[in-house]
Amino acid sequence: MSKHTVKARKPLAINAASLEHVRESFARQGLMKHLGAELVALHPGECEIRVAHLQELTQQHGYFHAGVTASIADSASGYAAYSMMPADSSVLTVEYKINLVAPAKGEALIARGRVLRAGKTLKICAADVFIVNGTEEILCAISLSTIMALAGLSDSQRRSTK
Amino acid sequence: MSKHTVKARKPLAINAASLEHVRESFARQGLMKHLGAELVALHPGECEIRVAHLQELTQQHGYFHAGVTASIADSASGYAAYSMMPADSSVLTVEYKINLVAPAKGEALIARGRVLRAGKTLKICAADVFIVNGTEEILCAISLSTIMALAGLSDSQRRSTK
Amino acid sequence: MSKHTVKARKPLAINAASLEHVRESFARQGLMKHLGAELVALHPGECEIRVAHLQELTQQHGYFHAGVTASIADSASGYAAYSMMPADSSVLTVEYKINLVAPAKGEALIARGRVLRAGKTLKICAADVFIVNGTEEILCAISLSTIMALAGLSDSQRRSTK
Amino acid sequence: MSKHTVKARKPLAINAASLEHVRESFARQGLMKHLGAELVALHPGECEIRVAHLQELTQQHGYFHAGVTASIADSASGYAAYSMMPADSSVLTVEYKINLVAPAKGEALIARGRVLRAGKTLKICAADVFIVNGTEEILCAISLSTIMALAGLSDSQRRSTK
Repeated sequence: MSKHTVKARKPLAINAASLEHVRESFARQGLMKHLGAELVALHPGECEIRVAHLQELTQQHGYFHAGVTASIADSASGYAAYSMMPADSSVLTVEYKINLVAPAKGEALIARGRVLRAGKTLKICAADVFIVNGTEEILCAISLSTIMALAGLSDSQRRSTK
Repeated sequence: MSKHTVKARKPLAINAASLEHVRESFARQGLMKHLGAELVALHPGECEIRVAHLQELTQQHGYFHAGVTASIADSASGYAAYSMMPADSSVLTVEYKINLVAPAKGEALIARGRVLRAGKTLKICAADVFIVNGTEEILCAISLSTIMALAGLSDSQRRSTK
Repeated sequence: MSKHTVKARKPLAINAASLEHVRESFARQGLMKHLGAELVALHPGECEIRVAHLQELTQQHGYFHAGVTASIADSASGYAAYSMMPADSSVLTVEYKINLVAPAKGEALIARGRVLRAGKTLKICAADVFIVNGTEEILCAISLSTIMALAGLSDSQRRSTK
Repeated sequence: MSKHTVKARKPLAINAASLEHVRESFARQGLMKHLGAELVALHPGECEIRVAHLQELTQQHGYFHAGVTASIADSASGYAAYSMMPADSSVLTVEYKINLVAPAKGEALIARGRVLRAGKTLKICAADVFIVNGTEEILCAISLSTIMALAGLSDSQRRSTK
């Protein structure tokens, strides 16, 4: 892990079994599949998403489009937050800000999201996105986001009733 | 309309022919094609991008993923800015912030980007994203972004020399 | 004015008398007094704050410090939101982003905040800050913010029980 | 330092003597004096600013106003950036975003700014703001900002020529 990495707060103890609702929600995201993104790590308050380079994911110079960078930063933050929410709740991104600090030129992108502050209604998250070349990772984006829990309506119920 | 609304700066007079560099750059973005996004309007300092709903673009509830919303908001802002830059320059998103204000549940998304302030090096842009259902448009996201011009290196040259 | 401009939502009908809780809350802000800031206009969903130039408010070049710009943008946004909340609630800024688009060099600063989207728990607001010289106003900052209502605890009660 | 703290990138080696331009610029900020803010630590790429609680600095509940929190976060970020710029340049905040994550209720506020990414024209900075009670510090705000260097015009010259 790069020395640029933000250090995550020690996550609260949560029964790992409860993370199943996070994996199921991720699996329902059509966009993550369309981008080829994978949920590669998940812990209470932390989530890591990876996507390999494809021509379909580029901006005009052939690098990863900022939209891909932002999409996986958003999902990594949202699922880091959702991992600290009850299974019978839904998760919603209120807003985020992202700085693109280096060209996303490489083999893969990894977004590492973590909860900085866990309120009952709102969770404040940060994500760092790294561009991977061989064994090297370079920080290419940093985001700060506000995620909301919608109580009493599970993610899957919400879908079926839409 | 409220008198408090931010007034877009009168765009600089620019030969419409010079907007060709914007269309060419958009056409090189693999992600825009992969999302099915189209450049539907382009004027000096303004750009509009539209994407139709597909299962491939969804979040866990079947609505448009925030990543799609943000991707077209970013491209609409970036190209609004690029339309006010010389053709022999490149365009780069430094950062943006986006608020997702309503569920992106509908047939299509339209992002309308505009330049609020055109400095030589930096352009400050806003984009509104609307969700379309029939003839109705509802504001579903608002972004504010900082876009940078890289002088003396055209977008297409940059690609071929990478 | 561009058709792309974000249209402010028609504010909910609110008894203007109910805005008294906003004026009282503003009057309790020690910082607004310390900066010499005044609440110059208040309507449901809209708020305007003005501050005159003083040496005490400067950055290193003698212009208004960005902290002043941001402080009045934040208060104008927060009170625009609070004007749409019940009097027995408190108001809290969750986050904001601000772009400083022109030097704040002039006689006075005016921040105009407005509610763009009024949810029950969260209100999304924008503020424009103008630098005033004689009869001319120049846009010098733009902010986008997320404001939260804390139900069932009035602003003044909260203070007395702290 | 709290475990919530973001870890700073190792700063580039810079002659500490060159930091004099930072101290001089800080001393010229009327607002910092008006708030009672002090520059308590300064290293290349890092800056710490502290302000003690006064009634003059409060919001409606008697806590520190978010405007104070944001002002010192902005100055700490700007001067962290300026410490990595040549003495014959000026420093300018382009934009920032701040999340207010806990009530700023306490004896003093400390903002710790650091450079995350040092480009030639733009520096991307983060700041954490802590509320201090006795020996305890609690993270109460997090910011992410974009700072610009204006080459060839020193901060003090700029003032005298305005």
